[in-house]
Formats: sequence, structure tokens, C-alpha cells
Amino acid sequence: MARVLYELAGTDPARRFSPYCWRSRMALAHKDLEADYQPWRFTEAESLAFSGQAKVPVLRDGERVVFDSGAIAEYLERIYPDRPALFPGTPEASRFIVAWADTVLNAHLVRLIVSDIPQWLGEGEQAYFRSSREARFGKRLEEVTEGRETRLPAFRAALEPLRATLREQPFLGGEAPAYGDYAVFGGFQWARVVSPLVLLEADDPVAGWRERMLDLFGGLARATPSCGT
Amino acid sequence: MARVLYELAGTDPARRFSPYCWRSRMALAHKDLEADYQPWRFTEAESLAFSGQAKVPVLRDGERVVFDSGAIAEYLERIYPDRPALFPGTPEASRFIVAWADTVLNAHLVRLIVSDIPQWLGEGEQAYFRSSREARFGKRLEEVTEGRETRLPAFRAALEPLRATLREQPFLGGEAPAYGDYAVFGGFQWARVVSPLVLLEADDPVAGWRERMLDLFGGLARATPSCGT
Repeated sequence: MARVLYELAGTDPARRFSPYCWRSRMALAHKDLEADYQPWRFTEAESLAFSGQAKVPVLRDGERVVFDSGAIAEYLERIYPDRPALFPGTPEASRFIVAWADTVLNAHLVRLIVSDIPQWLGEGEQAYFRSSREARFGKRLEEVTEGRETRLPAFRAALEPLRATLREQPFLGGEAPAYGDYAVFGGFQWARVVSPLVLLEADDPVAGWRERMLDLFGGLARATPSCGT
Repeated sequence: MARVLYELAGTDPARRFSPYCWRSRMALAHKDLEADYQPWRFTEAESLAFSGQAKVPVLRDGERVVFDSGAIAEYLERIYPDRPALFPGTPEASRFIVAWADTVLNAHLVRLIVSDIPQWLGEGEQAYFRSSREARFGKRLEEVTEGRETRLPAFRAALEPLRATLREQPFLGGEAPAYGDYAVFGGFQWARVVSPLVLLEADDPVAGWRERMLDLFGGLARATPSCGT
């Protein structure tokens, strides 16, 4: 197939857990574009050499190569304008939601779930993941997530702008999902795939939205191996 | 004039300080619509009886009456579609930014500046403002803002999604401002008009954006009486 998305995977190639790769996979599904979803592991930098860098997601679309989830979404919108629009208005007008997902949501989540990730990785990837992330945090991964249940109320409070929006409408995009939904959902899907931690209370409007996101595209995100939360 | 926006004012009718009224004033300016900007005070509920409720902003546009800043913006977009668009895409797609301004930005700001407000009010309004807000917070206004300088780092950290977006582009809307910019700016303008507290460091990209917002429409927001920060 001429279209390939390279995605972070665990030892089980079906366990795709990168929040940024999920943004791209949902964006492709939104555009109703088929692709071959290639598993990629942390230790396989050389296999991305064709992209001129070493991080996923990478999209190879025929002769074209695009990396970075934001660039991939903007590329899809530009090259496939006749398919459902990913961005209401312009990509720029969705940047704030994406920035919130990056700097608030994912910043909270990594401190809640990072120690659950190594169990899904092969030996060499585990070593890479531990040493790079422990250097970033300045402590062991288990220390980063220690006492995480006590931090759930602060995490849930930080979701208030999301909750307030989803009390008004089914998706961040409005009646239908848009790229902002995928940007935010990527974080929740990352957590769901690697961690048993119950992040949301059942009656939270955010939990209802997450279910709707899991239902999209024939249950695309629900079908991936996960810890089920 | 057939178009009137009722806005919260201090004893000095030129001191307009409501973050929500500023959203509406900037939205009218964005649409290049002239209006008579009527001062309204907390003790004048009966003068808004024509709107069927007692809060500003209220827009009277010929025969039509609209209240609530969000409803006013959507009304302007619907009734004046040939003028510059306020919402990239749809109003729904901007709800997350507005919700962030309401639940994060303004929630931080009120705890930093609320005790600066009574000085700008007449005696009757002061009594109303104190009793209603002190009931909400369960303490005196001066206790709410006590030690506020020590909370500035947390406030500035909470602006990170704003800052990350504004490192990429001049406005939240992209190359030009949109309703999301006005929703967020309303909070900063509220603070600027009532409080001498220096909220931002000079080299913060958010401070640069605030200056651009103050410059819009011939310096509309800069021209109002303020504490200058």
C-alpha cells in the first residue's frame, strides 16, 4: 500500500500507545483514508532514516514523507481538501486546544502513568525508555507515579475546560469531532492502552465523550489492546 | 442610536471593567459595528428589565435584545455574516478556548484582583459587591487576595497553553484575532482596568499578545481608564 503510518508499538505489535500517533491515526480515519499501520519501536531509529529524523508518527504517502503529528494533520487537510474537514476554520484556530493537550493534559498524564509503560516493552526498549525518561524527571519512574491516586483530584480539576465544553456539546468540534478532539483523545488513549489507573469518574461528561471517541470509525480506538479503562 | 451595549462601569462611567462586557465590545469592533456603550452599575437591575434578566452585557440591536456574552457573539455572527467572521469555522469550535478563559484564566484572576474592585465603585455598589462576593468566597475580599504575589508563579504556569500557542502565531485565531482572543483578552483587560498588580513578565509571549490586543481597533482597549499594567 502506498500510504504508511509508522506508529509506536510495544512488544505486542498491536499495542499502539503513543498519544501523538493516535492523533494521526484518528486524523486518517476522519479523512476516510486507508493506510498500512506499521509498528515501530524506540530502538529502531534507523528505520525512520528516510524521514530525516527519528520520531514517530511518520506518514509516508506515496512519494511524500511527513513527520510530526501536527504537520501530518495539516498535510492531510491540505492534500485531501475534498474529504471531511479536520480543522473547523483553519489549523491555526485549533492550536490552543492542541497546546492545552500537550502542556496540561499530557503533562498531568505522564506523571500518572509513566511507570506502567516499561512492562509493554522489550528489553532493549525498556532500557532506552527508563534511562531517557528518568533523566528527564530526575528520578525513577516508580517515584514519578508514586501516590498517584492522591493526585487524581487535581488531574480531574485540570480537565474543567474540557468538561465545561462537553456539557454544552458532544465533541470539542461541536456536533461532530474535529482535530482538537483527536489531539485531546490521544492522551486518554495512551493512558487506556498502558495503564489500569481509573482516570475519570463514571458520571464525568469527559468520560461520556471518551466513550463516544472510542466508538468512532467502527470502534477503531476501542479495538486496540488496552488495560480497559 | 439603534444599537446599544450595556456594560458594567465604575463610579467613573468610563471605567468599564467586566471581562464579559469586554468580550462583547471587542466583538462589535471586530464586526465594525458602531454602538452606544451605556454604563451600567451593579445596583441598576431594574434598568435591564427590558432584557428579562439582570446581568450585563446586554445588547439592544434595534428591536432585538440579546444577553450573555456568548449569545451576543453568536448573534452578531448570525445577523452580520457579511462582516469579518468572529468564529473560525463555527462558534462551537471556539467553545474550548472560551471555557478555558472562564474556568482557568478568570478563576485565577478573580483571586488575584477581586479586592482591588470596590475602590472603583459607589457606596451602594460597594456594599452589593462585597456581600455577594464575600458570600461566594466565604471570606473577606482582602483575605482572598492576601499574599497574591506568591501565587503569581502558579498563575503564569497556568497560562502555558496560551503561551505555547502564541509562540507559534500572533493571535489565538491565527494571523488575525478571533472571538477566542477576545474571550481571553477580556480577563486581562478586567485586571488591567481595576488592579495595579503586574501579572506578566515583560518577555512573556502572552504580554506581547496583550499589547497587540490593546492596539486593535485604533487602541480601543488601551484608551479606557486603567491601572496601566
